[in-house]
Amino acid sequence: MRAVVRRNKQLVCDEIGELTPAAGQVLVKTLACGICGSDLHALHHMEHMIELGRRAGGGDNGFDPTADTVFGHEFCAEVLEFGPGTTRALKAGARVVSMPITLTPTGGLEALGFSNRLPGGFAERMILSEALLLEVPNGLPTDQAALTEPFAVGAHAVAKARLDSDSVSLVVGCGPVGLAVIAALKAAGHGPVIAADFSPRRRAAAERLGADMVIDPAKESPHDRWEGLGVPKARAAQAMMRMMGKGFGRPVVFECVGAPGVLQSLIESAPAGSQIVVAGVCMESDRIEPSIAITKEVELTFVFGYTPEEFAQTLRQLSEGIIDVAGLVTGQVGLDGVAQAFRDLGDPEAHVKILVQPGLAPQNG
Amino acid sequence: MRAVVRRNKQLVCDEIGELTPAAGQVLVKTLACGICGSDLHALHHMEHMIELGRRAGGGDNGFDPTADTVFGHEFCAEVLEFGPGTTRALKAGARVVSMPITLTPTGGLEALGFSNRLPGGFAERMILSEALLLEVPNGLPTDQAALTEPFAVGAHAVAKARLDSDSVSLVVGCGPVGLAVIAALKAAGHGPVIAADFSPRRRAAAERLGADMVIDPAKESPHDRWEGLGVPKARAAQAMMRMMGKGFGRPVVFECVGAPGVLQSLIESAPAGSQIVVAGVCMESDRIEPSIAITKEVELTFVFGYTPEEFAQTLRQLSEGIIDVAGLVTGQVGLDGVAQAFRDLGDPEAHVKILVQPGLAPQNG
Repeated sequence: MRAVVRRNKQLVCDEIGELTPAAGQVLVKTLACGICGSDLHALHHMEHMIELGRRAGGGDNGFDPTADTVFGHEFCAEVLEFGPGTTRALKAGARVVSMPITLTPTGGLEALGFSNRLPGGFAERMILSEALLLEVPNGLPTDQAALTEPFAVGAHAVAKARLDSDSVSLVVGCGPVGLAVIAALKAAGHGPVIAADFSPRRRAAAERLGADMVIDPAKESPHDRWEGLGVPKARAAQAMMRMMGKGFGRPVVFECVGAPGVLQSLIESAPAGSQIVVAGVCMESDRIEPSIAITKEVELTFVFGYTPEEFAQTLRQLSEGIIDVAGLVTGQVGLDGVAQAFRDLGDPEAHVKILVQPGLAPQNG
Repeated sequence: MRAVVRRNKQLVCDEIGELTPAAGQVLVKTLACGICGSDLHALHHMEHMIELGRRAGGGDNGFDPTADTVFGHEFCAEVLEFGPGTTRALKAGARVVSMPITLTPTGGLEALGFSNRLPGGFAERMILSEALLLEVPNGLPTDQAALTEPFAVGAHAVAKARLDSDSVSLVVGCGPVGLAVIAALKAAGHGPVIAADFSPRRRAAAERLGADMVIDPAKESPHDRWEGLGVPKARAAQAMMRMMGKGFGRPVVFECVGAPGVLQSLIESAPAGSQIVVAGVCMESDRIEPSIAITKEVELTFVFGYTPEEFAQTLRQLSEGIIDVAGLVTGQVGLDGVAQAFRDLGDPEAHVKILVQPGLAPQNG
């Protein structure tokens, strides 16, 4: 079958071996699979990612960055064939999503999209675990179902935030992670939500997903809005308000940029007592001033992934229109268009999310 | 009256002007005042501290680092004389402690020990606010009452930790901040508490304050103890335990060293999902690897100071023997001994806490 293979830090379209589902597994046809920022990073910096993962105590699960890899972990697929020992509760032809994990008969697991042994979603077919399949409900379009994974990241970040009923949230960076956070905040009934991004296209997407205020940081600091929304910035002013019996919700900032320097700029500019939920993955080392974070009693909550419950909840919210992602997919490519799509995603103005559709006919020229 | 004055980055004994209590204020005689790590830092790096405070949005309250300052914010004192508009509920001669803040008749406040306008506790007398005075109860010795302020720092750090009933705590660094955290953990009924410090003297103090295990990091990593105490280190192992219905409390690490590099070493070595309560004040900029903190879902909670309630609670716990600080004071000096005491405190083996007793007769030689 055809797949986009990472080989020598390049993406090449090639034929790879056919797949056979083992016990508990299901062979699926990949209908659509999003390209994630982590894919862009992994193309060139896989060794560094593995080294950081090793230092994080996660082990490398035998992953060899010099061997062929098929990326893709944000997918919607169609059931083709069941392996032995499956319940077959779903039928062939059912559309499904799954967390990007496949359990192996020996009790191990493969991280789809970052494995040498099983392909991710940039291939015509994949092997999933029957136990992790979720059928796409309510006729949710395939392109939108494929956004379950990135939007579950937002649900998890919001679940880790300790928001009061009158909290003000600021989302810094409106790429896919920031947009997912905005959607999850509004789905949970939180507000007001301030969203900041340099890109007009991303600000428009933030607004469509329910951000109450969108700000261009080139023109104004989002932090100038805090006091107007009832959140005093300095600890002394906060203490004074509390003495006067005036409450205000805990300010929560979502860091969804993931570039060096952003963390310290937020530590300095956010109100005292802020929780900064760090959802943007900065792969470089970064510098902070602990004494400023101490004086302001800031909290840095680093978040990653999602729980199975958050994943299922996100699919439900997408299918019920609680989160409306129509219009977020700004490009669709076949397998032969993936390498160019990786390059296109370098420009934040050009795209929000590009989906790979392995069934799309090859383009000429 | 006599005081130890910071002048040209030196400590000199000198005569300073007599004090008169204004409205709501009380003149007190300083009985004992501890030397804090922040005093040691401020002696040489006051400008840098002020700059960091300014970036933290706190303002400098008109503080001039080139003008004379009398340090000392951990004190026990005796009431001498009441200013106008005071209730005089206490009598002259009463022993008192207070948060190191003096309210001014114009509605401002002076941070005692870091003010050009009022002296801190390294002076024969001070001006305190009647409204903030707490009488020393139960005949608690003066030397121990003077430890209310540093031990309130520990109470606050523990209040900011989100400890489950079966949480394991690790206290890294057993200087005064770490010891206060250990005492507050045990006073609140938490355990087990692991304490780590290179200094045998500090480890002994940690044990006396109730640490359940004390560890010399030169000989073993405190992080090797987690699994033996039922806390799995990696996220996969944690998920597995939860699936098997085996609970474990959230691991909480208290960073009480305050030196560059410690934070990143804790991010890497603590179990996934740890809360790291940062109580040690690192005045230098520091480097972290955000992607490792993200993969492990670590939380960095920076804490500072204490609330009036935590301060009062600490005094009560000291006076009722819930926190037993006997033996922690390892040196007592008069005003003429302060400069040498600052030098002596550079050696962690030499001292835990030195108290300044302005009434102590000058030493010869």
